[in-house]
Amino acid sequence: MDNQTRQVREAVSNVEKHFGELCQIFAAYVRKTARLRDKADLLVNEIYAYAATETPSLKLGLKNFADEFSKLQDYRQAEVERLEAKVVDPLKSYGTIVKLKRDDLKATLTAKNREAKQLSQLERTRQRNPSDRHIIAESDLQRASMDATRTSRQLEETIDNFEKQKIKDIKSIFSEFITIEMLFHGKALEIYTAAYQNIHTIDENDDLEVFRSSLYPPDYQSRLDIVRANSKSPLQRTGSSKFSSGIIQQISNSRLRKEEEEDEEEEEDDDELEATKEER
Amino acid sequence: MDNQTRQVREAVSNVEKHFGELCQIFAAYVRKTARLRDKADLLVNEIYAYAATETPSLKLGLKNFADEFSKLQDYRQAEVERLEAKVVDPLKSYGTIVKLKRDDLKATLTAKNREAKQLSQLERTRQRNPSDRHIIAESDLQRASMDATRTSRQLEETIDNFEKQKIKDIKSIFSEFITIEMLFHGKALEIYTAAYQNIHTIDENDDLEVFRSSLYPPDYQSRLDIVRANSKSPLQRTGSSKFSSGIIQQISNSRLRKEEEEDEEEEEDDDELEATKEER
Repeated sequence: MDNQTRQVREAVSNVEKHFGELCQIFAAYVRKTARLRDKADLLVNEIYAYAATETPSLKLGLKNFADEFSKLQDYRQAEVERLEAKVVDPLKSYGTIVKLKRDDLKATLTAKNREAKQLSQLERTRQRNPSDRHIIAESDLQRASMDATRTSRQLEETIDNFEKQKIKDIKSIFSEFITIEMLFHGKALEIYTAAYQNIHTIDENDDLEVFRSSLYPPDYQSRLDIVRANSKSPLQRTGSSKFSSGIIQQISNSRLRKEEEEDEEEEEDDDELEATKEER
Repeated sequence: MDNQTRQVREAVSNVEKHFGELCQIFAAYVRKTARLRDKADLLVNEIYAYAATETPSLKLGLKNFADEFSKLQDYRQAEVERLEAKVVDPLKSYGTIVKLKRDDLKATLTAKNREAKQLSQLERTRQRNPSDRHIIAESDLQRASMDATRTSRQLEETIDNFEKQKIKDIKSIFSEFITIEMLFHGKALEIYTAAYQNIHTIDENDDLEVFRSSLYPPDYQSRLDIVRANSKSPLQRTGSSKFSSGIIQQISNSRLRKEEEEDEEEEEDDDELEATKEER
């Protein structure tokens, strides 16, 4: 095996090796992106759950934020699918391409070597018998030389195509990666701009009014009024009139028990998370 | 325990529960972001490793891309640290805040209940003995009523502060989250724009020239020239003069062996990745 043959084979092996590694790491990158989306989905659900228990302005602000954040996760899902289709899959299919190219090169290299051998043999024959076998050797040498040149040019072409295609593919794969990522980051900026407004417009004073009125139901207020009416010197009570109407939330004991159970589950989750952390 | 007391306690428990869950999920989101950064770091290293084996234009383009992509990972690291400091830690410390608030509320609620009991007891006493103990009961009732009103107002204030602070904190935590994420996405767009240029300017024709000249070393060329000079009819060989000068890369057998070993390791990695995938 001459230097050239070795060099071509090494070039193909190198591409095989690095495209394989790139494929694996890009796939891992995509998987981690999908896991990030999973956690973001959990966040969306938890924000909805928390918002449902809150006063109107906070409830609306958080719900709207969760709507936007959920939309962003749809874009992240699209990012994941596009990266798989346009980056991971093309790198994966390169394994097959490289194998075919390698067979192609092997055949051409074999022919080239066979012809080079034939050519040098003819040269030797001609030098040993310069007189009587001159005519035959001359035309044989000429044909062998032409064959060797043709096969060499064919090999050059095969290698050229391989190299050219490889660079084109690398360019296309990385361009796709960048485009897909940019699309996602652009959408993220757009969505977070809207989401910021949702959080910014939450009005703590509006919510405080509602919370107060839910805490001080009419029966409590009227009981105080009776005391005040019965006592001879009316108390100077101000600022509580706004608490007079209210909503009484019914809290059953079963619900309280349920919450305690959930707290225990949370602690278990915590342990699991810690365990996962330690595995790293 | 009256409805109001129960309601206040439920509000505090609700915050404790949901802030705890939000804290956990945000922490998981941050961890997944950190893992995504880990994979991106691996990608940076592999791109550098592959670039080192390639022809000049591809080498430079990939190296510059890896430089930019590596910079983005520094921003991702900053994102991770900021999210921990401005989102996860504040939510975590809310556990302590809620406990203190709960003690605060408990004390005020206890006083309120005691005073309400005292007030209704005095009312009953006055109704049972409308004549002889009238004067004493009247002033007692008045003082008890004032105490109850004062404590009620104090409770209102405590609850108000808790609610107000909670909404302010939620707003601040979510605003920080959005700002940190936007900062990262903005940087990502900026960096990918530069990175796109790095990939776009890779010139496959330049690289092809270099690759060809490295493949066809002078000794091969001169051997063909000898054949051509010896044969009577010179071959019409064109387009190969540019292959005449070249770099001969020395490939030792030990290096080839090393690559085979690495291939085996890759396969093992593949199995590990598959195993991780199945664990999910």
